[in-house]
Amino acid sequence: MSKIALQQNRSLDVIVLGRAGVDLYARESNKDMADISGFNKFVGGSAANIAVAVSKLGGKSGFVGCVADDAFGDYVKGYMLAQGINLDGLMTDASGSRTSVAFTEMKPTDCTVLIYRNNASDLTIKPEQVSQAYIASAKILVVTGTALSTSPSREASLLAMEFARRNNTVVVLDIDYRPYSWRTDVDASIYYGIAAALSDIVIGNREEFDMMETVLAPSNKDDDMTAKLFLHGNTQILVIKAGELGSKVYCQASEKFQQGIYHVDAQKPFGSGDAFAGALIWTLVNDGELEEGIKHGSAAAAINVSGNSCTEAMPTKKQLFDFIKANKQDLAVRRK
Amino acid sequence: MSKIALQQNRSLDVIVLGRAGVDLYARESNKDMADISGFNKFVGGSAANIAVAVSKLGGKSGFVGCVADDAFGDYVKGYMLAQGINLDGLMTDASGSRTSVAFTEMKPTDCTVLIYRNNASDLTIKPEQVSQAYIASAKILVVTGTALSTSPSREASLLAMEFARRNNTVVVLDIDYRPYSWRTDVDASIYYGIAAALSDIVIGNREEFDMMETVLAPSNKDDDMTAKLFLHGNTQILVIKAGELGSKVYCQASEKFQQGIYHVDAQKPFGSGDAFAGALIWTLVNDGELEEGIKHGSAAAAINVSGNSCTEAMPTKKQLFDFIKANKQDLAVRRK
Amino acid sequence: MSKIALQQNRSLDVIVLGRAGVDLYARESNKDMADISGFNKFVGGSAANIAVAVSKLGGKSGFVGCVADDAFGDYVKGYMLAQGINLDGLMTDASGSRTSVAFTEMKPTDCTVLIYRNNASDLTIKPEQVSQAYIASAKILVVTGTALSTSPSREASLLAMEFARRNNTVVVLDIDYRPYSWRTDVDASIYYGIAAALSDIVIGNREEFDMMETVLAPSNKDDDMTAKLFLHGNTQILVIKAGELGSKVYCQASEKFQQGIYHVDAQKPFGSGDAFAGALIWTLVNDGELEEGIKHGSAAAAINVSGNSCTEAMPTKKQLFDFIKANKQDLAVRRK
Amino acid sequence: MSKIALQQNRSLDVIVLGRAGVDLYARESNKDMADISGFNKFVGGSAANIAVAVSKLGGKSGFVGCVADDAFGDYVKGYMLAQGINLDGLMTDASGSRTSVAFTEMKPTDCTVLIYRNNASDLTIKPEQVSQAYIASAKILVVTGTALSTSPSREASLLAMEFARRNNTVVVLDIDYRPYSWRTDVDASIYYGIAAALSDIVIGNREEFDMMETVLAPSNKDDDMTAKLFLHGNTQILVIKAGELGSKVYCQASEKFQQGIYHVDAQKPFGSGDAFAGALIWTLVNDGELEEGIKHGSAAAAINVSGNSCTEAMPTKKQLFDFIKANKQDLAVRRK
Repeated sequence: MSKIALQQNRSLDVIVLGRAGVDLYARESNKDMADISGFNKFVGGSAANIAVAVSKLGGKSGFVGCVADDAFGDYVKGYMLAQGINLDGLMTDASGSRTSVAFTEMKPTDCTVLIYRNNASDLTIKPEQVSQAYIASAKILVVTGTALSTSPSREASLLAMEFARRNNTVVVLDIDYRPYSWRTDVDASIYYGIAAALSDIVIGNREEFDMMETVLAPSNKDDDMTAKLFLHGNTQILVIKAGELGSKVYCQASEKFQQGIYHVDAQKPFGSGDAFAGALIWTLVNDGELEEGIKHGSAAAAINVSGNSCTEAMPTKKQLFDFIKANKQDLAVRRK
Repeated sequence: MSKIALQQNRSLDVIVLGRAGVDLYARESNKDMADISGFNKFVGGSAANIAVAVSKLGGKSGFVGCVADDAFGDYVKGYMLAQGINLDGLMTDASGSRTSVAFTEMKPTDCTVLIYRNNASDLTIKPEQVSQAYIASAKILVVTGTALSTSPSREASLLAMEFARRNNTVVVLDIDYRPYSWRTDVDASIYYGIAAALSDIVIGNREEFDMMETVLAPSNKDDDMTAKLFLHGNTQILVIKAGELGSKVYCQASEKFQQGIYHVDAQKPFGSGDAFAGALIWTLVNDGELEEGIKHGSAAAAINVSGNSCTEAMPTKKQLFDFIKANKQDLAVRRK
Repeated sequence: MSKIALQQNRSLDVIVLGRAGVDLYARESNKDMADISGFNKFVGGSAANIAVAVSKLGGKSGFVGCVADDAFGDYVKGYMLAQGINLDGLMTDASGSRTSVAFTEMKPTDCTVLIYRNNASDLTIKPEQVSQAYIASAKILVVTGTALSTSPSREASLLAMEFARRNNTVVVLDIDYRPYSWRTDVDASIYYGIAAALSDIVIGNREEFDMMETVLAPSNKDDDMTAKLFLHGNTQILVIKAGELGSKVYCQASEKFQQGIYHVDAQKPFGSGDAFAGALIWTLVNDGELEEGIKHGSAAAAINVSGNSCTEAMPTKKQLFDFIKANKQDLAVRRK
Repeated sequence: MSKIALQQNRSLDVIVLGRAGVDLYARESNKDMADISGFNKFVGGSAANIAVAVSKLGGKSGFVGCVADDAFGDYVKGYMLAQGINLDGLMTDASGSRTSVAFTEMKPTDCTVLIYRNNASDLTIKPEQVSQAYIASAKILVVTGTALSTSPSREASLLAMEFARRNNTVVVLDIDYRPYSWRTDVDASIYYGIAAALSDIVIGNREEFDMMETVLAPSNKDDDMTAKLFLHGNTQILVIKAGELGSKVYCQASEKFQQGIYHVDAQKPFGSGDAFAGALIWTLVNDGELEEGIKHGSAAAAINVSGNSCTEAMPTKKQLFDFIKANKQDLAVRRK
């Protein structure tokens, strides 16, 4: 019943649009930035993480984005290719932009993340560089919302979504809100509102939906009210993530349900959202039910935060099912 | 049958969003810019022209826009107030922007228009400055498309349209496309596409709809195909202006029709579109039929181009009806 | 004794570097901007004014600057050519900049001047566009200081001055300070300081020298102290203009002197400085004494403010000498 | 004879103006960027390197610059303070700029260095933030030329040099030319020309002096000609570094001389220039002869490139003299 209708004869399961960059994780855990001796190097970025997640589970991922024409850009492309990701939509920019880099301490909480995104390459992708045929070759397009934060990436994202709608590619918006990327919350709420209206599925946490309601319902904190605001037109499903409390899922066509999380010892506070989205989407493209997808997402998130990087700690299909079996406590699922 | 349902108990008939500036018309007709001795000064700008047009016909206009905090800004505000236009939504910018100025030769054709719009005040209006209550106080919101060309005016326009939709204020998009204001036609087509989807009525000429089809139907020149592309969802009416050939009007709810123009001796090649939009909108807010509105629009356009400025040559209700009576030749109306 | 040594076999008397634009003067005198009916059109801009002043007196002027590639640019070039000014160094910019325009009321005092200089063409001139051979073809290079306010015009000006120094072209700096063009007074004082050190003659008023002392002597108002600060190295002469009180002239090589002004009924408060500089420079290139040049400058200034525009009211040689004869009261000259 | 006269009663030996940032060195040597597993973290940046060099030799260094208000900024400040460097002139920027970061492979040649300097904090320092009293508290001001590349750091540097001149602080310009920081070579040559004219000592290599001659002597490759061009006015000493061939030193007051280099196994191709400048300056502030300073500089450079980072591998006084003793082969010194 809670299945998403997908076009079947597509060469790619999913195309992810957004940021691919370099993550530099503190070599020593539980040390402050000033005191660590150096960093371990990985590929990261929300969109890259999701593409890798789908790919490691066995899905066929593609990518729309941009990296710099330099050694870090080459590194990111080489890694993603090695993961089996199709890079026909990944551009290279030689105008002086730089591949996004994130430096992080390794602490489960209060973890400093230092982001180098001044003139970031991913935000230089132009609408002229987005191919309608490419978008039409996938069952699902995932847009990570940071791509909406500045031009021309904003226009590239909106055009990709328009292409998806006209070609029956299902659109998923992963809100992925980074306040520092936007002029104001008001601007963010305007473009996220437009993007949500073009999406079949919208995934975010309470704080992200608060931002989306900046203008329309500034004091609302109630998830049901949020569902009323955004669940119409094209938008069939809303997933509101609540950390420890699990996820609430609202469907236009049916009842809402809520699902808990798997409890693990976290090594780092990031990566879980991308693992969640990746496993959910992988489930959907494999004709799985929404409830199943949310469960897979929760498991993948738990596995990821126990690992030492975002991309490397994405589970394979076997790791995912082993983990679920080993953590038998049934995740609470409540229906309204 | 071809009427637009409007909210009746609103304090304003129409709010126009966009450009109010200064028009400087060559003192001598049929002379080149280098040879004219000076300029006559008027208030102009598409949005100001439409607001004045409605006001002179007896309607109650409001305005959303921005002028510079200087002598030209004061002049524009003083003139609009004197025309009875409500200026609660007209902002003043003191950050160094300048009120838009257009210098024009006075020639019926091949008429040089020199535009001073670097850091134009009208494009500095921010979404934070747009009041939902104000938009909700009008029957109709008219957005002139140049306001979409750059941030933050782009976001202010999109938010105003969202406010209008949520408050049952009918939205009219006057495309008003100026290529020099945009990064590329692709960008323009993306934002005009989003704006059209938020509008009840879209007005433009063939070249403007060509721009809107840059990505979706790049080689199309067929009006019926254009109607198919844009006439769905919120968009009920499409008016495609064709100069000498009159206007084609497409309705979602009913058949299309075509109406000719009044032939007059033009003094200048501009102002007609704004006069047309103003008289059409004035007709609609007075419970007139669409066909009648198009006829009034054609008459107002003819009167305006015979005059010596845009705002000053907008007709009063008496002038409009006298002109129509005096030009009895019935405008051809063809129905499909 | 107070003569400037100039290279004699040069094809041009003077090259002026800076702003050439359009002046639009209110058609009616003593009316506010909002109430005037229109504007009379003239060529203006400090540098253009000085070049015209020299040319009308019979000197051979050249020009380094930039106008827009449009009808106003054509107008400015046509007028300057008609005045006999060599335009080999006048560039045309087609990147979207606009020729500077000034709108002015016509009042002797409290006269609103509205300046359109956002992305002004004159400030787009690049150092690559300045020819050493051209600078070397003139006896004097006059730099009007607004050209120093932003890049790349700043670099073009500094390079022109360096070329002048290396080719024994005498450098005159007319401070021409417009605060709105600069980030801060501190920035202005830094670049004016560098430019003054490259100049043989520096001309300004008390307020302009105050700006130059922002960092070095922030509270100084004493002209003698100012002379001490700037009159060394290359800088031989400092002219400090004091409006009604005339001008103080400081020479490195000899004593200072002071000269009064001619009293006339002013029609407008601008143009006098450029007329002064033009007549002074014309005197120097004709082997005149400095004292004589200052007197000619004072007369030209008086003639100019009595007229109705800046360029058109520059006197011919005959007008200048007739005026001096008719105003026999000897201008007070005091020597220290 | 070849000594520089310095003000003696100053609280600081030297203030260095420019870049302090983070250097991330590949963990593995002789591997490509894509293949290395991570980076070791150090403080770096030309100006920081020179300040550390002087400090490790026992001199008292100060600093003028800017870092970001974040964990990397804190790290840089903490390290420099621990080295005994006075940081009264080191600003913190919270506007979104980022502390400069350089990622490097570890290879003696063909070593990729990836620089993150989009909106770099060091270039945000404003002239208003430079204290005349601070500049006046040092014997020597060293300006590293990258600080001249963009505003407002350019103006801060020029003002610091002006302050130094007015307070008898000797000015050293280390050209430190990075083409990517500049609009064009022409612009660079203009500002380096101005800066050189404000300096007592100018240090650079042949390629850097080529850039300085872009406009004045575009095809010159001859060091003697270069000395003729720049060795006048304030500029007493020119040091032209020639890698393997050692350095040529030109003095306004006396003859030129040339000195060879120490041959060592280099671990990395950077850091040597800063070590050279640091040891030379330390020698001068300790009343050493110029020839001795160049010899110390050559030794420090050799020691530095043998180490594994720039700052950490700066020698102490003991290490410097031990190295010189151990490498007895007298460096060839030729006099003209």
